[in-house]
Amino acid sequence: MNGADRLCDTLLASGIDVCFANPGTSEMHFVAALDRKPAMRCVLALFEGVATGAADGYGRMAGRPAATLLHTGPGLANGLANLHNARRARTPLVNIVGDHATYHLGFDAPLTSDIDSLARSMSSFVRRATGPDDVGPAAEATIAAAIERPGVATLILPSDAAWGSVTTDGDARPARIASPPRVEEARIAELASALAAAGGRAGLLLAGTAPRGTALEMAGRIAAKTGARLFEEVLNGRSERGVDRVPLERIPYPIAQATAALADLTLLVLVGAREPVAFFAYPGKPSRLLPAGCDVATLVEADDDIPDALERLADRLGARQSSPRRPDAVPMPAMPSGPLNEDAVSIIAAAVLPEQAIVVDEGLTSGRRFYALSAQGPQHDYMMCTGGAIGTGMPLSVGAAIACPDRKVVTLQADGSGMYTLQALWTAAREKLDVVVIVFANRAYAILRLEMGNVGVTGFGHNADRMLRLDEPALDWVSLAHGMGVEAARAETCERFADLYRSAVVRKGPFLIEAVI
Amino acid sequence: MNGADRLCDTLLASGIDVCFANPGTSEMHFVAALDRKPAMRCVLALFEGVATGAADGYGRMAGRPAATLLHTGPGLANGLANLHNARRARTPLVNIVGDHATYHLGFDAPLTSDIDSLARSMSSFVRRATGPDDVGPAAEATIAAAIERPGVATLILPSDAAWGSVTTDGDARPARIASPPRVEEARIAELASALAAAGGRAGLLLAGTAPRGTALEMAGRIAAKTGARLFEEVLNGRSERGVDRVPLERIPYPIAQATAALADLTLLVLVGAREPVAFFAYPGKPSRLLPAGCDVATLVEADDDIPDALERLADRLGARQSSPRRPDAVPMPAMPSGPLNEDAVSIIAAAVLPEQAIVVDEGLTSGRRFYALSAQGPQHDYMMCTGGAIGTGMPLSVGAAIACPDRKVVTLQADGSGMYTLQALWTAAREKLDVVVIVFANRAYAILRLEMGNVGVTGFGHNADRMLRLDEPALDWVSLAHGMGVEAARAETCERFADLYRSAVVRKGPFLIEAVI
Repeated sequence: MNGADRLCDTLLASGIDVCFANPGTSEMHFVAALDRKPAMRCVLALFEGVATGAADGYGRMAGRPAATLLHTGPGLANGLANLHNARRARTPLVNIVGDHATYHLGFDAPLTSDIDSLARSMSSFVRRATGPDDVGPAAEATIAAAIERPGVATLILPSDAAWGSVTTDGDARPARIASPPRVEEARIAELASALAAAGGRAGLLLAGTAPRGTALEMAGRIAAKTGARLFEEVLNGRSERGVDRVPLERIPYPIAQATAALADLTLLVLVGAREPVAFFAYPGKPSRLLPAGCDVATLVEADDDIPDALERLADRLGARQSSPRRPDAVPMPAMPSGPLNEDAVSIIAAAVLPEQAIVVDEGLTSGRRFYALSAQGPQHDYMMCTGGAIGTGMPLSVGAAIACPDRKVVTLQADGSGMYTLQALWTAAREKLDVVVIVFANRAYAILRLEMGNVGVTGFGHNADRMLRLDEPALDWVSLAHGMGVEAARAETCERFADLYRSAVVRKGPFLIEAVI
Repeated sequence: MNGADRLCDTLLASGIDVCFANPGTSEMHFVAALDRKPAMRCVLALFEGVATGAADGYGRMAGRPAATLLHTGPGLANGLANLHNARRARTPLVNIVGDHATYHLGFDAPLTSDIDSLARSMSSFVRRATGPDDVGPAAEATIAAAIERPGVATLILPSDAAWGSVTTDGDARPARIASPPRVEEARIAELASALAAAGGRAGLLLAGTAPRGTALEMAGRIAAKTGARLFEEVLNGRSERGVDRVPLERIPYPIAQATAALADLTLLVLVGAREPVAFFAYPGKPSRLLPAGCDVATLVEADDDIPDALERLADRLGARQSSPRRPDAVPMPAMPSGPLNEDAVSIIAAAVLPEQAIVVDEGLTSGRRFYALSAQGPQHDYMMCTGGAIGTGMPLSVGAAIACPDRKVVTLQADGSGMYTLQALWTAAREKLDVVVIVFANRAYAILRLEMGNVGVTGFGHNADRMLRLDEPALDWVSLAHGMGVEAARAETCERFADLYRSAVVRKGPFLIEAVI
């Protein structure tokens, strides 16, 4: 048995049986080991950003990590942007990076780079296997780190550690995972009093695993009992939404709207979240979003036992039997007709949303109305670009579809960000994933047009215009999808879009709709 | 005047007038400044790896830096792989990365990451502008660093440094560039003696700017006088080749071939190069390629004045008037016919190579015969994936075409690596660049099949096979190119390929040929 086999066995023993991979020469022993482990599902990505984004989507939906397999420093570099999103989503993710053989590093061969530094920038844990016998312990530690403090844990695997013989006896051991810490009772008591006192001027901000399952339900009861408002972050990792679920207010992206939404608060309780701040700085605008004098208190950190803390808080408030609020019945607009526009796409997509869909929203400026309309629709999960590193939509969808093969993934994809990782379409085709991609083809970096105004720039000349428009030439998403084996069609009217979308959500396999808006 | 204007002015004053950009919100003031500087050519890339690879191609051909403009840590991360290739090619490149406003960093907003660490991994110089008044000095220092010790120099531009007012008087200053150091005469004398003594068992290894112009010609005369052999690295940054130029032996990639090629040497003189080593380590194979007992001596470092050192060495050897060797007349094979294969593509592409073409070779396993056949063909420049970070071919071509608008760029592109940065096609279409891309569509990571054998792995099962094949589904490069506005056609026979290639090299604008092999 070599180190690569030991790594595979340790992953499998720890319940990690999906690997999103783009291997190279230094990873060939790991590939050979995977070949001997049919229980490991290997999913090839044609670009590393697809592999890491898919592992993020998988981890968000499965609640347990997938592994990646990346090739040395440049391969890791290509995956970093979506690892950044994963670390911001606190997704458990075991990121495996192959490296040169240990004795070869000193020669500074062309592919050599500082993998450890690259990894640390987007990982909460980095470990380099020192040799074949260290692969098992290093893998166990990496897996434990990814799960215990949910996030990106990186294992660097030198090729001689992969190909060398393991001399320690026994089978691979599963990683030992410590239970998440429980919040001290004193803090629960303190915040129960504070919430009771603040009433409707208190808010709870839910992030990480908080906007799901028991935690979400308990937050709803606490809110019903105390009058507190419930918020989620502007870009959430995964929220459970729809009929019979507790609705959350999303903190708006524009600073003026965000500060207005939070203006009445005297207390914000953080539940797996950090204090909300502006996404970007703008001249003369604040970085902090909360009003002066608003207290900020942490109920529970993202690494702690969030459902437990909320249950105990509900108990202490006598809120266990309260009836949480349910989504307001917003009247669904009539089905639109005529030339397609952004709002029409949102209305149609929300009106025909399948039961238990997984919605991946990287629509950016487009599709914002979908969020409001889908709140009262069928139950669904909602995932966003948590770290603001664009190019996450289609990779997240790939991973979510692999984690949940019986559910439909609906991807709201801006065209500019979609171009970052369009190679994800090929993986969707190869794996026959049940993903509908709606590309909002506005043929511009529309968000930057807005942001130029926000930073005080008015008017566009030749150079700026060329930097913000994508229409010369226009991208043809139908051809791009066909090029990667994904069926696709273009819609320029509401009727056509509705036809395509209705059929796409009931058929199996990937389909892309280019919505020209 | 704000900091962003000062940066643009400093770039222009220093002769940097091309910027490959993919900006975001934190760069909007720089975009606005570019808008006020029509002398700056802004080239939009739809992915940062295209921007950095294009800046590499531009720098290699122009001999002076282009600027990039990237958006915070994730944007930089997306560009790192091609910055890695640029640093290995020692390409002068001014890499500009926007960041949050200084005062906003402490809030750890979603897009925040450790830009400085990310940049250092692939840069020889990193500087962060501390405020508007520091932008000019920081830009001057960055530009000087990129040129004086040719490589990637990174300037981090916080958005408040960009939007804040410059209070220092006067116009922007050009960066002051020190002349490259001259090699000491004692070293010249020592190596002249050593070369004379070693005769035909000596070699010179030329890298950086050495395989070009006067340096190349002088190396040829030294070789003619002393009998020394002339080598270039397995993956060179840019070599000048073809009729009436000094031919170089390329060190082979496979270790056995490389050690055989170097086996007779008793002396290797490094000219802007480092000692050749194996690209990867393999079990039981050496990392060093030179025979035991071969002396290694550095004539001149990559940052020194290479042409000067070779001229003086030639003088000392009395080689100034020697007649250097010219390419051997290898008989050109007959034009092939019938089903297309890799060799046939090479033969046809070499036979019809335009005068003064720029050849970008990321064919990897494909097209190797082209290198041999083109040695005696029309004069051309030859660029490769210096750092082994794949996904460089089409971006290099974009940059080379912008640097040399009157020359035809012929890109030999493997399909697997082409998928990494296929967004480059869109930039080629938008800028109407004179690039012919030949995609070797073998529908596999063929190099990894070879490498599995090299690392001692034989036989492929399901998981390995799925990781190395790209044929399920097959990529349709004609559709992919059309999706980005590039004309394209597929060839499955030699006749069809020859027809397409002949017409592509005489027309203007980008064209892609999918060569199914």
